[in-house]
Amino acid sequence: MTKRPLILVTNDDGISAPGIRRLIGIMNKIGEVVVVAPDRAQSGMGHAITLNSTLYAEEVFIDDGPQKEFSCSGTPADCVKIAIREILDRQPDLCVSGINHGSNSSINVIYSGTMSAAIEAGLEGIPAIGFSLLDYSWNANFEGCDNFVKTITENVLKNGIPQGIVLNVNLPNLPKADIKGIKVCRQAKANWVEEFDKRKTPQGKDYYWLTGKFVNLDGGEDTDEWALENGYVSVVPTQFDLTAHHFIKDLNTWNLND
Amino acid sequence: MTKRPLILVTNDDGISAPGIRRLIGIMNKIGEVVVVAPDRAQSGMGHAITLNSTLYAEEVFIDDGPQKEFSCSGTPADCVKIAIREILDRQPDLCVSGINHGSNSSINVIYSGTMSAAIEAGLEGIPAIGFSLLDYSWNANFEGCDNFVKTITENVLKNGIPQGIVLNVNLPNLPKADIKGIKVCRQAKANWVEEFDKRKTPQGKDYYWLTGKFVNLDGGEDTDEWALENGYVSVVPTQFDLTAHHFIKDLNTWNLND
Repeated sequence: MTKRPLILVTNDDGISAPGIRRLIGIMNKIGEVVVVAPDRAQSGMGHAITLNSTLYAEEVFIDDGPQKEFSCSGTPADCVKIAIREILDRQPDLCVSGINHGSNSSINVIYSGTMSAAIEAGLEGIPAIGFSLLDYSWNANFEGCDNFVKTITENVLKNGIPQGIVLNVNLPNLPKADIKGIKVCRQAKANWVEEFDKRKTPQGKDYYWLTGKFVNLDGGEDTDEWALENGYVSVVPTQFDLTAHHFIKDLNTWNLND
Repeated sequence: MTKRPLILVTNDDGISAPGIRRLIGIMNKIGEVVVVAPDRAQSGMGHAITLNSTLYAEEVFIDDGPQKEFSCSGTPADCVKIAIREILDRQPDLCVSGINHGSNSSINVIYSGTMSAAIEAGLEGIPAIGFSLLDYSWNANFEGCDNFVKTITENVLKNGIPQGIVLNVNLPNLPKADIKGIKVCRQAKANWVEEFDKRKTPQGKDYYWLTGKFVNLDGGEDTDEWALENGYVSVVPTQFDLTAHHFIKDLNTWNLND
């Protein structure tokens, strides 16, 4: 590529999170970087968009890197929309989201702001990747991520991704030397078993905190959960056509029009 | 069925919206109804969940129907979680969400709080259906919906739905006599072309309203958009395994571990 690729960077932990700062550093070596990211943490926002409230996006200067950066009051999906329509003067060659502090493997993909940003870019025909590290802490160590993020990104820039697909990449929380490599996977069948921590307000009214336990229901060795548990980086090609095509034939045997 | 089915009803427009009131009326004729719905409109929330804030759910009495009702401060997905874990004393036989004021056809499914509630129930192994009427107004006329909602619901109770699938039902905004029937469809390939309405605050700072135009990119006659435009109720089987299985083989040819 003679011209450096234009790379849009976003996330859902907020523009100052260590994970996105690391990702910006990696992307600065690959292309021209524009960051449009939420001004605060947006975790668990799923594919929310801001319909009933106003949005702002303003240029900010956080470090002395060559990237341009905009802090946005919206959700991750909003950030991608506003970047494409208002901030960038041409379609980006790539959108990367993350590096998320915490897993977006398996069923977590549907709750994930990180992945919703990647999907929003994918909807616009932009190759897109969500990156997540299996460590929820703010002080997570992203050192082991660099080479894997770089390799996957360069492959996407070289090979492209078909329309309708984005990549969901999760990295195990291991020292670089202990990571065995990259595995292409399917999304494991798993579930959250929620437990509500029920408390009383000082005024005596019941309220709840949502907590839960992740349960992997899938014994397959071709899943993202298996890869991560066994020391691999997982790459799941993820689509936003949610049609269960295999069930259409059965559904047509129902007596819906009698 | 000798015992009346237990039906969980929720939505994303809020517990007092005309669409859910209509749905409760229909479901009261089919089974024992428990409503757990957001205390206010939650449209565009996607599959958001409340991780960093507290939740409440309290019993309310809105009309003189036989249903039990709980108003919840959370998102549609939160409502289903709290219903299953804290409110209901057994697993419901069915979860219905809606009737949404406005379309959740095509790509709208990924932004939809209505469908996120249905998917959340599906994750728990509960047969689930999201219903939406193609009229965004609060005064939408739901009269044409009754028989179609009843037929689809009774078919789901009779036939079941395989694990991993929920139904996304959209109803055209037409008088009952003009609706031609029910069509099983796939999700149309479509997109929103956003336009940001840029304004200035009284203090002179830029801000935006998100607006947009829906663009159907899909000429197929087997899509939900086609069905709705041609006077049919659309039923799309919708899955939450987002893996693009057809792309795994190609992805394995990439040089990810060189």
